[in-house]
Amino acid sequence: MAFIGTVAAEVLIPLAAVIGIMFAVLQWYVVARVPVHSHAGEDGGKGGRERERESEGEEEEEEDGVDYRHVEARCAEIQEAISIGARSFLVTEYKYLAVFMVGFAAVIFVSLGSVRRFSTRPEPCVYDPARLCQPAVANAAFTTAAFLLGALTSVLSGYLGMRVATFANARTALEARRGGVGRAFTVAFRSGAAMGFLLASSALLVLFAAINLFWLYYGDDWAGLYESITGYGLGGSSMALFGRVGGGIYTKAADVGADLVGKVERNIPEDDPRNPAVIADNVGDNVGDIAGMGSDLFGSYAESSCAALFVASISSLGAEHDFAAMMYPLLVSAAGIVACAATTLVATDAGEVKGVDEVAPTLKRQILASTVLMTGAITAVSFLALPRSFTLFDFGDYKLVKNWYTLFICVSAGLWAGLVIGYVTEYFTSNAYRPVQAVANSCRTGAATNVIFGLAVGYKSVIVPILAIAAAIYASFRLAAMYGIAMAALGMLSTIATGLTIDAYGPISDNAGGIAEMAGMPRRVRERTDALDAAGNTTAAIGKGFAIGSAALVSLALFGAYVSRSGIRTVNVVSPRVFVGLLVGAMLPYWFSAMTMRSVGSAALKMVEEVRRQFNDIPGLADGLAAPDYATCVKISTDASLREMVAPGALVMLSPLVAGTLFGVEALAGLLAGALVSGVQVAISASNSGGAWDNAKKYIEAGATEDARTLGPKGSDAHKAAVIGDTIGDPLKDTSGPSLNILIKLMAVEALVFAPFFAAHGGIVFNHL
Amino acid sequence: MAFIGTVAAEVLIPLAAVIGIMFAVLQWYVVARVPVHSHAGEDGGKGGRERERESEGEEEEEEDGVDYRHVEARCAEIQEAISIGARSFLVTEYKYLAVFMVGFAAVIFVSLGSVRRFSTRPEPCVYDPARLCQPAVANAAFTTAAFLLGALTSVLSGYLGMRVATFANARTALEARRGGVGRAFTVAFRSGAAMGFLLASSALLVLFAAINLFWLYYGDDWAGLYESITGYGLGGSSMALFGRVGGGIYTKAADVGADLVGKVERNIPEDDPRNPAVIADNVGDNVGDIAGMGSDLFGSYAESSCAALFVASISSLGAEHDFAAMMYPLLVSAAGIVACAATTLVATDAGEVKGVDEVAPTLKRQILASTVLMTGAITAVSFLALPRSFTLFDFGDYKLVKNWYTLFICVSAGLWAGLVIGYVTEYFTSNAYRPVQAVANSCRTGAATNVIFGLAVGYKSVIVPILAIAAAIYASFRLAAMYGIAMAALGMLSTIATGLTIDAYGPISDNAGGIAEMAGMPRRVRERTDALDAAGNTTAAIGKGFAIGSAALVSLALFGAYVSRSGIRTVNVVSPRVFVGLLVGAMLPYWFSAMTMRSVGSAALKMVEEVRRQFNDIPGLADGLAAPDYATCVKISTDASLREMVAPGALVMLSPLVAGTLFGVEALAGLLAGALVSGVQVAISASNSGGAWDNAKKYIEAGATEDARTLGPKGSDAHKAAVIGDTIGDPLKDTSGPSLNILIKLMAVEALVFAPFFAAHGGIVFNHL
Repeated sequence: MAFIGTVAAEVLIPLAAVIGIMFAVLQWYVVARVPVHSHAGEDGGKGGRERERESEGEEEEEEDGVDYRHVEARCAEIQEAISIGARSFLVTEYKYLAVFMVGFAAVIFVSLGSVRRFSTRPEPCVYDPARLCQPAVANAAFTTAAFLLGALTSVLSGYLGMRVATFANARTALEARRGGVGRAFTVAFRSGAAMGFLLASSALLVLFAAINLFWLYYGDDWAGLYESITGYGLGGSSMALFGRVGGGIYTKAADVGADLVGKVERNIPEDDPRNPAVIADNVGDNVGDIAGMGSDLFGSYAESSCAALFVASISSLGAEHDFAAMMYPLLVSAAGIVACAATTLVATDAGEVKGVDEVAPTLKRQILASTVLMTGAITAVSFLALPRSFTLFDFGDYKLVKNWYTLFICVSAGLWAGLVIGYVTEYFTSNAYRPVQAVANSCRTGAATNVIFGLAVGYKSVIVPILAIAAAIYASFRLAAMYGIAMAALGMLSTIATGLTIDAYGPISDNAGGIAEMAGMPRRVRERTDALDAAGNTTAAIGKGFAIGSAALVSLALFGAYVSRSGIRTVNVVSPRVFVGLLVGAMLPYWFSAMTMRSVGSAALKMVEEVRRQFNDIPGLADGLAAPDYATCVKISTDASLREMVAPGALVMLSPLVAGTLFGVEALAGLLAGALVSGVQVAISASNSGGAWDNAKKYIEAGATEDARTLGPKGSDAHKAAVIGDTIGDPLKDTSGPSLNILIKLMAVEALVFAPFFAAHGGIVFNHL
Repeated sequence: MAFIGTVAAEVLIPLAAVIGIMFAVLQWYVVARVPVHSHAGEDGGKGGRERERESEGEEEEEEDGVDYRHVEARCAEIQEAISIGARSFLVTEYKYLAVFMVGFAAVIFVSLGSVRRFSTRPEPCVYDPARLCQPAVANAAFTTAAFLLGALTSVLSGYLGMRVATFANARTALEARRGGVGRAFTVAFRSGAAMGFLLASSALLVLFAAINLFWLYYGDDWAGLYESITGYGLGGSSMALFGRVGGGIYTKAADVGADLVGKVERNIPEDDPRNPAVIADNVGDNVGDIAGMGSDLFGSYAESSCAALFVASISSLGAEHDFAAMMYPLLVSAAGIVACAATTLVATDAGEVKGVDEVAPTLKRQILASTVLMTGAITAVSFLALPRSFTLFDFGDYKLVKNWYTLFICVSAGLWAGLVIGYVTEYFTSNAYRPVQAVANSCRTGAATNVIFGLAVGYKSVIVPILAIAAAIYASFRLAAMYGIAMAALGMLSTIATGLTIDAYGPISDNAGGIAEMAGMPRRVRERTDALDAAGNTTAAIGKGFAIGSAALVSLALFGAYVSRSGIRTVNVVSPRVFVGLLVGAMLPYWFSAMTMRSVGSAALKMVEEVRRQFNDIPGLADGLAAPDYATCVKISTDASLREMVAPGALVMLSPLVAGTLFGVEALAGLLAGALVSGVQVAISASNSGGAWDNAKKYIEAGATEDARTLGPKGSDAHKAAVIGDTIGDPLKDTSGPSLNILIKLMAVEALVFAPFFAAHGGIVFNHL
């Protein structure tokens, strides 16, 4: 029926994934050519590759009266310390998570298997009772397998991202010294791209492979196949949850603790090597912002693919075995990888970034260019892969879709809504615009007005993104029901490779600045990395905006799939079960935030005590004559994050199970909708308030305008007020906010996976009341 | 059918209202017997009554080396200044609101009249098409009249409350000097009672009178009658909205502005007469916390009565003309007034408060006692007034209610949920418990951790209240559909007289402290009023908890009435219109909060500039040698609040109109549900974070425990951090938070009033998409 046949689809998808992986390797290779002198390598047996390139590009030795041979050795040492810290934390974290994974896999298998009492006989299909489908126990087994696969891929995504970032940060710092802003930007950007493409491509490849493997067993039972594949999304998101929460607590405990003593009490610069918490802080950037975010976006991507495939499987696309059309969601993602690769070449090869002013516009251009290119790619894919007409499942009814461009509109709606969210987020968090400048100006009257204005900016920044998401939802919902929503989500995520690139760029620049400071590089190098970092703060906020927007769409698609799978025809707000679910669901983001904020606060208090103790007990530390005990601070962050991630994790994992088992499928439907509509707002406002405070502080520090200079310099009363705002924003923007989008996605995908169980055994309490 | 006949109901309701009013007058009379020496009275021709009692109780003159004759004269002067300021603000505000009221009344009349093109012929009833009902244009006219009546009563409630409070504050200060904590407490408490009973009783009386008047026209057309009466709720709440927002901006602009310069920069005490913003601050307490809150709770009460009556009118109670049973909601309220009066006697006459420690327990006992007494009263009323069995409208179906105790359970569920909310709020905002102490302790590491912990406490405090509300909703929804919800709301509000009493007590004590400081009373007097005020902070938070909890129930009942009136049978979340409405509705509380927070912030900045200017320009002001220019600060607050209340007010008033007219009844249903479930969370967390910060500061200042003394004294770093938290909490707890419950109620009642219009003409945009 369509222009692309089964074979073409079977070739094009893995081909795009392989191209993406090769592109990532290429970027990594270019970054690896930047030399890092490593005398430290001899102690640990690591850094060998760096030593081989010791002979290149050393024109500037002894400039500024600084011994650059020593500085570069310090860089390598610090990079190594950060890398070891991050690796050891992630390995410890993953050990704990492995236990959880196995336990939860057992829960999945037992509860789904129990739906038909572990019978191994084929049974009538759910959506077509005339046919026979695979038994529930097989779905249980394959769902469990998919769950483990998703969890593994997620862990791998986070780990690889961390490796790329810790490999790149010292190189970025060194390039900032040797080659200026332009070359440093290119290194950070290429590293981000290495991570972004590696992640997007391997996610696609693993999913594609899993589908083909599962197909060997399921054959024509598309509904069973994609019901099982949904486990992939659940696995991805549960790891992402712990990654984000654990990493977020780690990084912010260290960051807040380091700042409170270092910047506020001792008046020493950020990232000063005398601060005992400084290594923990930099490790935190890599395990929280990089690994956590990598897992998070992988989870979004896996879930929206699963949601789209699941909904497609119960439409005529599944019934008529039109493989290419069934694979439409994956084809869109495949096209996205290619379009993003083309976009990346523009930034890295078409023209070099020359000055500080060009960094932010270049990153913005990336988002716009990938969106425009992708729109063309979607047109092609939709035209070539979709059949002339087909029907979609629409809650008991079927909806006839007559034109290929119907789905093109759905995908584009998501894609362009993402762009709107990105640009609005930039407006509210970049210090080039009025909102952040107003926040900075409110520091004149102290920290209180700064916080009041920052909260107000965060609240205000919710308006347009919500309207954009609402418009995308309305359009795609009307055109293609829940399949339209899932495709809109995939549309927003289709430029994930570019999104991850500019998202990873931020923490890499931040770390580069830290390394420059710690290695004792001159002030102008630090100024360059600070400029990169300021742009990175904004892109991080944009990335969070994308993550939240796509999470909203994904959750809605999963919610729709859950509703149809659990056999409810309507989710009626004016029924007590649904309304109570809605109300309690809207409360969960607050409960979750209360836990994570408090965890960061308590861990930061412990960190403060330790840092103060070291400054008091270690003679000569304050004057740089003695070395601090970095390891104790790393241990505080590690212990706090591993301990404190359990409760919020349990809240998210258990809420759907408890609601479904005790209060039934309708109450759970209400819970999901409530958590979704409330969580989105909390997440956006938290991220943007935090971003605004951070950049208000940077605005004062940089002193780039007349107005900014009247507020500064560092150490002025206004600057101190700005530092307080920044510190408050830290847990909001890097712990609570970004974890919330996982909360809403994860609860929805978990509900979908357990839907057969809830439909069979759920609602124990409400059935008796 | 029931034990209470029509005549009994017609007598008992106004009788209870009259008893309540007499009780209020009695309390006022007792308070008025406290003498206030007013030499100032001679200048202004006011305060004559006070002068007459100049001869009583003057044993302590010249003690502490303070000239008490002079101090008392100062008290009278200051009271007069505050009273004049508050009166002139309210009069100005009401002038603007009068214009709005007339305009909006016209909108109501024209849009409702247009439903049947202003035809004056009787038409088939909506819920019983076999009968003829009054024409739509009559409903439009009576709704408009009810709207104006509600607005007028609301304004009156606010104004009277303000008069009582400004009458009582100096008297409380003087009694704190003369008779100690016990007598001061009694004066503040009695004044609160005067306001509480006056308000609750007059609201009941006016509503009862209106129903009887309207009945003369409508006769047996109960549905038409109560549809029109709903305008009463709309009128009450729209005035309450502007009262809360305007008053909230006024009081917090002054408070934040005064604190930022006075406490932080100049290191002078709170309420020091040298601070130019101090009169504006005290005026603000009366126009914001007293008048605004009075209007707010009156609105809740009016709306829940209207919702209950409306739902009752379309049930068999209305069809069978069972007047006493129809009047069941008003009988419950009437019983509440009597039960609260009995409770009040316990506090004022059964045993005197002797020490500072007894204040908070006494107030807590009031809430418990009124709840217990009221439970008995509800039992009696339910048993006597309800028919043996009746049917209730349940979204297209009818639900048979067989037992009188079904409704008893609904009312009690609301009542006891209110108690739970009150106690939980106390736990999270009183400095006698761990949460606030933990917030205070986090001040050791500065303002940032204080704010992080305070936000976390606010978030956490949402959990139990939401579960309590959810349980009340589920029980009453299951038992008696929307009527059950409305009755649960009335149950929570049935102790409104006691609630208002202890709520008004707070700002009166606060003002008394201000007057003691300004009049130059000795430190021990200030300590006594501070102790009263600290208890008042907690009761204020409890009052807000009640207001929000009842608002949630009221809104749900109104939402249900709206759904049934607009002819929708289900509000299905998995339909694009409803879901988009839900998402955008959940965003509105953030938009609204962004506006109000920013307004307070900007007005505070202006106030800070003015206060700084006066300290710099007026020679001798800092040393108390010259008088500040209070009037300019009052003007800044007045102008800011009148200007800034327009935008948030418009947002709330226009959202339902825009949604209904452009996007139709289903989108509006989603919008209401979204705003409700999201707004409740924001409101509770904002109020309780603010309360926690305020009392954490008071905890440090009072230094009552070993732990607290290590944090203090005033002026220590920890105390400075606590002041920053307190200042941030001000707009959260007194502007945004409490306004949000009006937002959710008002949008729901407005949707209900305009439902016939939306059903006839709504949905212009979505009908074409």
